[in-house]
Amino acid sequence: MTRPASPAAYRTLDPAGIRAFLAAQPALAARLGGQPDAWRVREVSDGNLNNVFLVDGPAGGVCFKQSLPHVRVDPNWKMPLDRTAFEAAYLRAVRPHVGDLTTELLHFDPDLFVLVVESLDGHVVLRHGLMQGGDWPDAAAAIGRFVARATFPTSPLALKFEDASTLLAPFARNHTLTRITVDLVLTDPYHAHPRNHWLSPELDATVAEFRADPAVRRRVGQMQTRFLTCQQALLHGDLHTGSVMVSGSDTRVIDGEFALPGPIGFDCGLFIGNLLMHLFATLTPEGRARALRDIDQFWTHFRQDFIALWTNAVTHGQSGDAYAAPLFRDDPASLRQVQTQFLDDIETDTIAFAALEIIRRTTGYAHVADFDLIADRTARAARQEAALRLARDMLAHPERTPTIAALGACAADRAR
Amino acid sequence: MTRPASPAAYRTLDPAGIRAFLAAQPALAARLGGQPDAWRVREVSDGNLNNVFLVDGPAGGVCFKQSLPHVRVDPNWKMPLDRTAFEAAYLRAVRPHVGDLTTELLHFDPDLFVLVVESLDGHVVLRHGLMQGGDWPDAAAAIGRFVARATFPTSPLALKFEDASTLLAPFARNHTLTRITVDLVLTDPYHAHPRNHWLSPELDATVAEFRADPAVRRRVGQMQTRFLTCQQALLHGDLHTGSVMVSGSDTRVIDGEFALPGPIGFDCGLFIGNLLMHLFATLTPEGRARALRDIDQFWTHFRQDFIALWTNAVTHGQSGDAYAAPLFRDDPASLRQVQTQFLDDIETDTIAFAALEIIRRTTGYAHVADFDLIADRTARAARQEAALRLARDMLAHPERTPTIAALGACAADRAR
Ligand SMILES: Nc1ncnc2c1ncn2[C@@H]1O[C@H](COP(=O)(O)OP(=O)(O)OP(=O)(O)O)[C@@H](O)[C@H]1O
Ligand SMILES: Nc1ncnc2c1ncn2[C@@H]1O[C@H](COP(=O)(O)OP(=O)(O)OP(=O)(O)O)[C@@H](O)[C@H]1O
Ligand SMILES: [Mg+2]
Ligand SMILES: [Mg+2]
Repeated sequence: MTRPASPAAYRTLDPAGIRAFLAAQPALAARLGGQPDAWRVREVSDGNLNNVFLVDGPAGGVCFKQSLPHVRVDPNWKMPLDRTAFEAAYLRAVRPHVGDLTTELLHFDPDLFVLVVESLDGHVVLRHGLMQGGDWPDAAAAIGRFVARATFPTSPLALKFEDASTLLAPFARNHTLTRITVDLVLTDPYHAHPRNHWLSPELDATVAEFRADPAVRRRVGQMQTRFLTCQQALLHGDLHTGSVMVSGSDTRVIDGEFALPGPIGFDCGLFIGNLLMHLFATLTPEGRARALRDIDQFWTHFRQDFIALWTNAVTHGQSGDAYAAPLFRDDPASLRQVQTQFLDDIETDTIAFAALEIIRRTTGYAHVADFDLIADRTARAARQEAALRLARDMLAHPERTPTIAALGACAADRAR
Repeated sequence: MTRPASPAAYRTLDPAGIRAFLAAQPALAARLGGQPDAWRVREVSDGNLNNVFLVDGPAGGVCFKQSLPHVRVDPNWKMPLDRTAFEAAYLRAVRPHVGDLTTELLHFDPDLFVLVVESLDGHVVLRHGLMQGGDWPDAAAAIGRFVARATFPTSPLALKFEDASTLLAPFARNHTLTRITVDLVLTDPYHAHPRNHWLSPELDATVAEFRADPAVRRRVGQMQTRFLTCQQALLHGDLHTGSVMVSGSDTRVIDGEFALPGPIGFDCGLFIGNLLMHLFATLTPEGRARALRDIDQFWTHFRQDFIALWTNAVTHGQSGDAYAAPLFRDDPASLRQVQTQFLDDIETDTIAFAALEIIRRTTGYAHVADFDLIADRTARAARQEAALRLARDMLAHPERTPTIAALGACAADRAR
């Protein structure tokens, strides 16, 4: 992760190159089985950044991901190669805690910036699945558990500070992708910037209004500061519904390349923000009911699991240096109180970060596909406007939606 | 700083060794002037950790500081050598911003862990000076300015996050001395630990009471978490009145070996906590009035300077990524509001950290000398008890002393 790319060794692999690369790794070749010529190599890249291929052999499949020296969808936007290295490091850090809520890391090549993970063939990307009206009633709860299990064990609540510091330090160097978050999520949408775009002229007035609202601006500034200074745990950093794949009750988080130390509410807020956008983009009452259920399930399971992990650590005298066990082991009532306070603070962050995600995904650089469900442009603009007005309230009037439950109720009202 | 100590090269220098070491550095030898035999080498170590010598020649003087492989006052407590490396790095980071509010770094030797800085011969340590009834009416204001100028420019309020991250990352590895803070300041005093001691039996009941108070425990846990997760800026990390030297209106901060990224209120709280202890230890009304003036001066100048630096950065479009300039440049009213909020939060942290400092310096491992002013043991215990009761209230009832001004008034009352 710290090694600079050696441009001499790097080259972007085409399907033939991928086949040769995998054939040269005995463990990967064995996993695929049979002869390399017989392996099927399919490109599945659908994101902005990297090349992704699924490779199948007679015995099994793998997912091959390679960083490009530029943004995949914009070759003029140059970018260092190290993002797959951060994704590999994130998998190494969280997989022991989250198990099958993410993929197994099979291989990482630091010269080619190739990451190989288990193939989730047969799974669909949650965003696409939801847009097609699919229902995965266990998915949101699983993501809630994922966030709890990826964050608590990587925080100084669980770790001696030396271990937390050593674990988190390399991720603080994920500058390239953190810069994308700082600019695209936390800053650009709040002032004139050429990367911004929206349904214009329909949303012009709405955008002008939230930009002109000093309470929005103050809260955005505060969340910029929280994102950059509050290092509670290791975050996924890009946990939208496009970073989740599902099949039946199996739910997996993918694409941890934005991993960084940060406030836990950022991961929660991105996920909830995307569920909220799906809610506003969904035209059927059943679809909306499912989105509301998912928001509730995600939050309930995140909170419950996080507290359970914490209580368990303190009870066994194995907590970290934050809320250290010697102070709380014999005082379960105080432990419950500090847990409530800590989780309430995450809830407050979550709501604000969810609002930022809604705003940037409708008026910033990279939009979500969910609203494309609405063919009629006027209707689409109306739904986005409703989502944007909710987001503005979440930032400027946090007292109106102080909890995820209140937020769900308010969103249900406004998305009708 | 990252290089492991090479034990082969390291040896503790005695006065003859110090003379030879300095003679071998042309710039240092020139600063001292004349022949090495003529240099006077005086040991001035009075702290717990390192060897410190002042060396004078016909042309000038230097201060020589060397880490030992153990705690100076306890050779059985082994300790890595890298602490002078952190002190050197801290000086490099803050000196351009604070100027003559600290010392100039003249030399650092990474094999011998020798730090050479300008000699403050003629200055006295502020704690000792205050104990002797001296008055430095400019000192507290200068320390307030020091904290503002050492923290604002090293925070993402002033820096692009990449630069803040690169600047702070090495200090996050200051594990040895941070462990001392985590244990001795933030944890040990709140449970039975062999390193704790206090005037017993006089203070036994008071200690038992604050330990039994769940509100204290909850607040302590919260401050542990803030200390370990809130990385607002580069901190000095040990800013008590023994880390300040004064002469007339010249005020210097020394001994930055505990430097780490953290919440700005920690530096403020340590300094104010030590002024409060001096207040409680002082028997003359004039001395107490001066301590109260110093608390007020410190805070007023810290706050004023911090805000001035911030406003200046935003006005010139040169702010960092937190509270980014594009959002606030044209909205001075909002800028003032977020500044007030940010400084109010530091004030809250400051009061809590000051309380922790009072508690650990009267009931933990390393006590302050100030209370030795009171020869009579019963009277001494009474003063410490009053300070401890105030500290307990600061933690358990923050609404009683919500501001530094209110804290000063309350302390004035109770120290009479
Ligand atoms: N392990 C996997 N198994 C099967 N398909 C996968 C797997 N990982 C990724 N995919 C498919 O490849 C697509 C792109 O993957 P991924 O999101 O990791 O790429 P990316 O370039 O980082 O995208 P983004 O621009 O969203 O960051 C996914 O949307 C999914 O369809
Ligand atoms: N630049 C200087 N000029 C003159 N005297 C100095 C200077 N630096 C330190 N001293 C003297 O040396 C003493 C010890 O210095 P310092 O506090 O840096 O050492 P330390 O071992 O880190 O102490 P501590 O245990 O408090 O951390 C100071 O109290 C002061 O009297
Ligand atoms: Mg990605
Ligand atoms: Mg020291």
